[in-house]
Amino acid sequence: MSDGRLWGGRFADESAEAFHRLNASLAVDRRLWPQDVAASRAHARMLGEQGIISADDARQIDGGLQRIAAELEAGDFAFLPGDEDIHTAVERRLTELVGDSGRRLHTARSRNDQIVTDTLMYLRERAALQAGMLRELGEVLLRGAEAHLDTLLPGYTHGQRAQPVRLAHHLLAYVWMLGRDRRRLANVVSACEECPLGSGALAGVGFPVDRHAVAHELGFARPSANSIDAVSSRDALLDYLSFAAQLGVHLSRLGAEVVIWAGDETRFVTLDDAYASGSSMLPHKKNPDAAELARAKAPRLAADLGGLLGVLAGLPLAYNKDLQEDKVFLFDAVDTVELLLPAVAGTMATLQFRVAEMAAAAGEGALAAIDLADHLVREGWPFRRAHEAVGALVRACEERGISLADAGPSELGAAGLGDVSVPQLSAEGSVEAKAVPGGTARAQVLDQLEAARALVASW
Amino acid sequence: MSDGRLWGGRFADESAEAFHRLNASLAVDRRLWPQDVAASRAHARMLGEQGIISADDARQIDGGLQRIAAELEAGDFAFLPGDEDIHTAVERRLTELVGDSGRRLHTARSRNDQIVTDTLMYLRERAALQAGMLRELGEVLLRGAEAHLDTLLPGYTHGQRAQPVRLAHHLLAYVWMLGRDRRRLANVVSACEECPLGSGALAGVGFPVDRHAVAHELGFARPSANSIDAVSSRDALLDYLSFAAQLGVHLSRLGAEVVIWAGDETRFVTLDDAYASGSSMLPHKKNPDAAELARAKAPRLAADLGGLLGVLAGLPLAYNKDLQEDKVFLFDAVDTVELLLPAVAGTMATLQFRVAEMAAAAGEGALAAIDLADHLVREGWPFRRAHEAVGALVRACEERGISLADAGPSELGAAGLGDVSVPQLSAEGSVEAKAVPGGTARAQVLDQLEAARALVASW
Amino acid sequence: MSDGRLWGGRFADESAEAFHRLNASLAVDRRLWPQDVAASRAHARMLGEQGIISADDARQIDGGLQRIAAELEAGDFAFLPGDEDIHTAVERRLTELVGDSGRRLHTARSRNDQIVTDTLMYLRERAALQAGMLRELGEVLLRGAEAHLDTLLPGYTHGQRAQPVRLAHHLLAYVWMLGRDRRRLANVVSACEECPLGSGALAGVGFPVDRHAVAHELGFARPSANSIDAVSSRDALLDYLSFAAQLGVHLSRLGAEVVIWAGDETRFVTLDDAYASGSSMLPHKKNPDAAELARAKAPRLAADLGGLLGVLAGLPLAYNKDLQEDKVFLFDAVDTVELLLPAVAGTMATLQFRVAEMAAAAGEGALAAIDLADHLVREGWPFRRAHEAVGALVRACEERGISLADAGPSELGAAGLGDVSVPQLSAEGSVEAKAVPGGTARAQVLDQLEAARALVASW
Amino acid sequence: MSDGRLWGGRFADESAEAFHRLNASLAVDRRLWPQDVAASRAHARMLGEQGIISADDARQIDGGLQRIAAELEAGDFAFLPGDEDIHTAVERRLTELVGDSGRRLHTARSRNDQIVTDTLMYLRERAALQAGMLRELGEVLLRGAEAHLDTLLPGYTHGQRAQPVRLAHHLLAYVWMLGRDRRRLANVVSACEECPLGSGALAGVGFPVDRHAVAHELGFARPSANSIDAVSSRDALLDYLSFAAQLGVHLSRLGAEVVIWAGDETRFVTLDDAYASGSSMLPHKKNPDAAELARAKAPRLAADLGGLLGVLAGLPLAYNKDLQEDKVFLFDAVDTVELLLPAVAGTMATLQFRVAEMAAAAGEGALAAIDLADHLVREGWPFRRAHEAVGALVRACEERGISLADAGPSELGAAGLGDVSVPQLSAEGSVEAKAVPGGTARAQVLDQLEAARALVASW
Repeated sequence: MSDGRLWGGRFADESAEAFHRLNASLAVDRRLWPQDVAASRAHARMLGEQGIISADDARQIDGGLQRIAAELEAGDFAFLPGDEDIHTAVERRLTELVGDSGRRLHTARSRNDQIVTDTLMYLRERAALQAGMLRELGEVLLRGAEAHLDTLLPGYTHGQRAQPVRLAHHLLAYVWMLGRDRRRLANVVSACEECPLGSGALAGVGFPVDRHAVAHELGFARPSANSIDAVSSRDALLDYLSFAAQLGVHLSRLGAEVVIWAGDETRFVTLDDAYASGSSMLPHKKNPDAAELARAKAPRLAADLGGLLGVLAGLPLAYNKDLQEDKVFLFDAVDTVELLLPAVAGTMATLQFRVAEMAAAAGEGALAAIDLADHLVREGWPFRRAHEAVGALVRACEERGISLADAGPSELGAAGLGDVSVPQLSAEGSVEAKAVPGGTARAQVLDQLEAARALVASW
Repeated sequence: MSDGRLWGGRFADESAEAFHRLNASLAVDRRLWPQDVAASRAHARMLGEQGIISADDARQIDGGLQRIAAELEAGDFAFLPGDEDIHTAVERRLTELVGDSGRRLHTARSRNDQIVTDTLMYLRERAALQAGMLRELGEVLLRGAEAHLDTLLPGYTHGQRAQPVRLAHHLLAYVWMLGRDRRRLANVVSACEECPLGSGALAGVGFPVDRHAVAHELGFARPSANSIDAVSSRDALLDYLSFAAQLGVHLSRLGAEVVIWAGDETRFVTLDDAYASGSSMLPHKKNPDAAELARAKAPRLAADLGGLLGVLAGLPLAYNKDLQEDKVFLFDAVDTVELLLPAVAGTMATLQFRVAEMAAAAGEGALAAIDLADHLVREGWPFRRAHEAVGALVRACEERGISLADAGPSELGAAGLGDVSVPQLSAEGSVEAKAVPGGTARAQVLDQLEAARALVASW
Repeated sequence: MSDGRLWGGRFADESAEAFHRLNASLAVDRRLWPQDVAASRAHARMLGEQGIISADDARQIDGGLQRIAAELEAGDFAFLPGDEDIHTAVERRLTELVGDSGRRLHTARSRNDQIVTDTLMYLRERAALQAGMLRELGEVLLRGAEAHLDTLLPGYTHGQRAQPVRLAHHLLAYVWMLGRDRRRLANVVSACEECPLGSGALAGVGFPVDRHAVAHELGFARPSANSIDAVSSRDALLDYLSFAAQLGVHLSRLGAEVVIWAGDETRFVTLDDAYASGSSMLPHKKNPDAAELARAKAPRLAADLGGLLGVLAGLPLAYNKDLQEDKVFLFDAVDTVELLLPAVAGTMATLQFRVAEMAAAAGEGALAAIDLADHLVREGWPFRRAHEAVGALVRACEERGISLADAGPSELGAAGLGDVSVPQLSAEGSVEAKAVPGGTARAQVLDQLEAARALVASW
Repeated sequence: MSDGRLWGGRFADESAEAFHRLNASLAVDRRLWPQDVAASRAHARMLGEQGIISADDARQIDGGLQRIAAELEAGDFAFLPGDEDIHTAVERRLTELVGDSGRRLHTARSRNDQIVTDTLMYLRERAALQAGMLRELGEVLLRGAEAHLDTLLPGYTHGQRAQPVRLAHHLLAYVWMLGRDRRRLANVVSACEECPLGSGALAGVGFPVDRHAVAHELGFARPSANSIDAVSSRDALLDYLSFAAQLGVHLSRLGAEVVIWAGDETRFVTLDDAYASGSSMLPHKKNPDAAELARAKAPRLAADLGGLLGVLAGLPLAYNKDLQEDKVFLFDAVDTVELLLPAVAGTMATLQFRVAEMAAAAGEGALAAIDLADHLVREGWPFRRAHEAVGALVRACEERGISLADAGPSELGAAGLGDVSVPQLSAEGSVEAKAVPGGTARAQVLDQLEAARALVASW
């Protein structure tokens, strides 16, 4: 075996340094070692059971792989400069440890089916972990909703106060988003159900392997149906990256809101010191860095998705080296999601909502303009005429510098509402008037909370 | 009602021309008129049944909307310069037709819940249509597989001939890809099950609307659970765009392969004249334009997805005008998918596979190198040593300019295989040796074909 | 000439409908007719002058093309179903008008060099127009800066009030951004200097064309240097899309700020009615739609850039049909920029800045915390200790619910500042203390304004 | 100074672990230490010279920073868990080394101006390095062109052989692409000319710093003009990422071509063993991994650009934590470019072009179809009629299974060319007929080569 090439028979010369640097993926894929060792153990065991290698070879390999796993676990594994990727490093070390038995491990296998098997196993494991993280964030939001059923704040449209809503209602909006993320994550797991091992380089393998046994041992539901597709496809990764990109959007929107809420203008929340940063220059600053980063990571997750889509576009079947780029995008997204979810959960769990500031903002008069228009409708006005008249009233009040609630006969008259009995307008009245399913009235939010609890419990 | 503003009460002045041009979305969203009219009819009917408007108003509105639909259908609807979008155009015309009754249509409704309802209905309808298109392409591929069970061609890795495979096996790889696309499309439909109408601007509405009745009449499974989420979310669109981006990748890979197959180098296929173009200058050219465009559209679909992800990132709840951009991306993707699928199906259905050229390429000697290595393994060699020796043999043959099948004692000796009984190597033997589930041997491909038929039949 | 194929010699059959729909680009590229006609006229004239066609043929062609231009200008040009793109439509009509002379137009030319010539001419013209739009926006910002030299507002970091700055200083930040955009636009024009005509399909043409003459007549600096590169490259388009994407970011940031400033929380500006929208439901709303759309268009421009990058990646030389997709992205970006710039200029030109609200926010005590720390430094404190002490003081004040300006002996003592002579802190003093080049003190902003005026005048 | 917060005065509590993990950027930005130390030394020296700190403090700081640089260079620098980024690590260590003098370093400075200064210095340095790499690749291509002036190969359109061209001509196409990349790289350097230091957090600083002196010492042309813009803008990075994305496209296209040329179908090149990989399973494979990776990296570079565009879109001025994400994208692109350029240069420098295979493919008869049509034009035929007739001839030959060069009276008659004197058609004749500037005839390619040499020499 020549230095720097694990499989050198076909080659007269060594790799160039510039080529090796570009080509080597070890720095990226070394994190796959647990999956790689597990898949190799299952493969070798099956080879032994099928009589493709001897029982003794299978035993030797298994022992060697266990030792390699221990070395990797302990950080004692000595990677060599020529190790191109985690797979060659493990096989190289195995051959050092158990000689010709090690040289039998790759019987009936290719890196093409091996790497995608490892990756799907890895993805399935991270998905399970991230499901727990989603649930934690969901529970934090539920607790916030439970605590703030009767806290009112302005709901916004177009960046402006639009109508009062319950804070519980607002927080629950994010629970439903996460619910859809959770469903997408379940779809990712479904996309990891088929075991590629046994597909070989692309055509299948020339030995009577037991693909079902290996698949089940490694936690897959079944072997993949088409060997060409199995080594060429990165659909499960795209499914994950689509999940991550959408989750990123949801967390980005929440982050953006926390930044606004923590701003001097609204002061709707006080950030816990544990989730805020200072300024290196300005002594008074308490910056919502976690929220800003939650806002800022969405484009990165979208770029990871876009990057892999770009790699795959126009790529002929079956395996091409281009596919090696898949892991850069996948791992970056996995790491980003796993940094974000706990930090966002911690931020939300420790946020102090400033109920009085929220209520004051929610109680501003003009926010009830629609309630006045609805009142006119109940008095028989066509809605569009009511909307027009109340709009004129708002303008009249604005010109006089008064609140809608303080509109007097002069303003009402100017708006053609001189003879209208204007009802008492209040934020509380406004929210209670939205007594439709999904609306912000108390009873409906209580119903919603119950449904959301059941949803989160199912994650 | 002031010219150029459907709801002008609050405003003293008209819109500026530069603003109107930027703001107006009619050119984009006018295609939503069937959904908009249907949703408005259901809404008005329900308002009447709930006694929120009179039965007569409801009847007037329904008649007016039917007439509007007829005008739009016939192309007689006169859009006015001030019509900002399809919703305002319809309401404006309705008021022209039925006066104050028309001014009652928007009772208990906002454009915010209206537009997302229309969009989900539209998306659901296109998804159903596209499911049929997927099925047609699947059937074309199945027929190709059935016809070419015994056609061999080289399978490629790294852009090079790697191993012989059955053409049926290769074509079926795409069926499995489309199967995953079909599953994602089903998930899109699931994401369209909740009716936003009744969510109002963001908080719900102030009248006793029957959200369940409207939802069911419009084909939804239920009303949405949270009014803020309902008007803010574009998740179903992202799900669709993720589906389209992945489908785009699959069609792009197929297109890239057809371009290669139609090239002078392989001549694996002859394009039907009906799916090829000439050159304006070079008289001999017969260009695979449909295949090239299938290859080229994937980045556009990815850009549509990336664009909407970008719009949503960092956007605070609830509705913001930014969301208007959603339809540019959605409609572009819908149109692109609906252009691509029939053209790709037609291209594949009319492609003539040149069986002899494929077979000749598949029969090239070196493609059986793995079979020789596998033979050595069965003789007791460790795989890695066998791989090394066969690699050396390939190099020796290459240096002497002969095919692997013609290796003689001199080459065998040079590769350390002097005393090895070299078996007869053939493409047919090679494919039949891959007799594992998912492999390219005949029996396995027949099994696979049966499974693929059942899959496509379920779309 | 067969129906539906302008160049049918090589083909026995017609195009399929599904193929024609995918393949035809007329709906997209018809806007290129002025460039196409101009380039064809220059080409034909040169062919005549070089004796490649007769003088009479050249005259006939020129007359025919003038008539076609008139028809297109007047909207009288009858496109036929078989017209694949604007080039074939023009050549088809020319042949109808002038017979065999028309059949000579395409001598020594290919659609490959024709289309990229047309596109570069188009791009150069739009760039000139957009330079004027940039200048208009720059002038609006300059006028704002001149009017608001002495208006203070809080500068923000991390979404929070950080330090007082002059509004002029803030507005000028955008002028410098636009200055860089203007430079990039100039680079786009430079990238359009080489005329591809004469490159033929990819190898050059077989007649003694005068490439210099055609280049100069069409406003190019010179003919392109390499025919393969000329028909394959879309670099100038990528340069434009990069420009547009960065401009989009700048306008998006400005839009985001206007949304914040127009919000109920800051009330820093009043939008002119001409650049605001109402709500279909909520009568009181005055929405900053233009600003929101300026914010929202950046992802679309980025998607246009990403899309074309994706089309070009991995595409072998020379011309491929994939390149037809370039115009979708280019034209979308051109249209978006030309919608945005005037609308943003109009929004900014009509914005009323609410000086009192800005000043009040800028005068908030904690914003001068750095000035107190700087004072301590001037008293001999190490900066980091001063920062620490003032930070502690801010915390002490916050706990007691008082402003930094109102800190008394108790708070000062708690922060270890008991024996410090605290200076008078004010927003005005704070800005004047930043008397460094590029800083926000009056004299420096006046210097900056002068430089910015000179910059904008050069656009 | 509390553990884990360099500036803790304002905070009562420590950071949460989940927050610290998300927030810390040390792993990313530690590579900036040389720039950070250099900028801090220049800043401190200036502070001393301006009398803002004492000469002794300045000396102490300078000595401390030199020692820190030596520790970092040697790998001896002990990072602590609380080090949030490279800037805080350096300041923390400096304070350990020189006490209160170290606490004076941050006088008149913020991380906001510090980090962007460091980044621009870094970018300028990498750009200089990469200019050299571009030149090396340019020289490799020039040498290839010089060696292959008389090597013919088919030029391709639509993935099919279109016309014979000189290999020199084809290779030079890439030199012109790189020339545009080089120009864009020069623009990146121009975009790094303004020194942000002195902009403080966003408003400027409160001490009489000498911004010009610092700027010049650090290699900038001048201080930045507007402090708000200076800390908010990432335009220079976007310029770099746009450069990298376009370079990525060019290398991707070259990579795609090398993959094709190395394929079994064309066998146009033999890859050097030093730039090829084997297969773990298939002994005969010699894979063009470097070329595949060159093809595959373009989407990653595009994703880096798209990612940063996404972060910046909609971000209000001035500094926000979101901007920290800039370095992830920048560094990934820098590393990718620096991996790619040498590997592509090495691949191209060691490629063996198989002249005979190329010539054989270029000599295929139909490629001269245009030359026959041009001949007819010279005989007086309108081009479109000539195109039609030659197209019919190609079809007739194809139906009879003969080459265009072998067309006899029967085929000529069928195409309406019975009475035409058909000239001798050859690849050599075809290329020499393209004797226009930029064309593929020998003399023109020699002219082009001279111009390309001058261009590369100027890089």
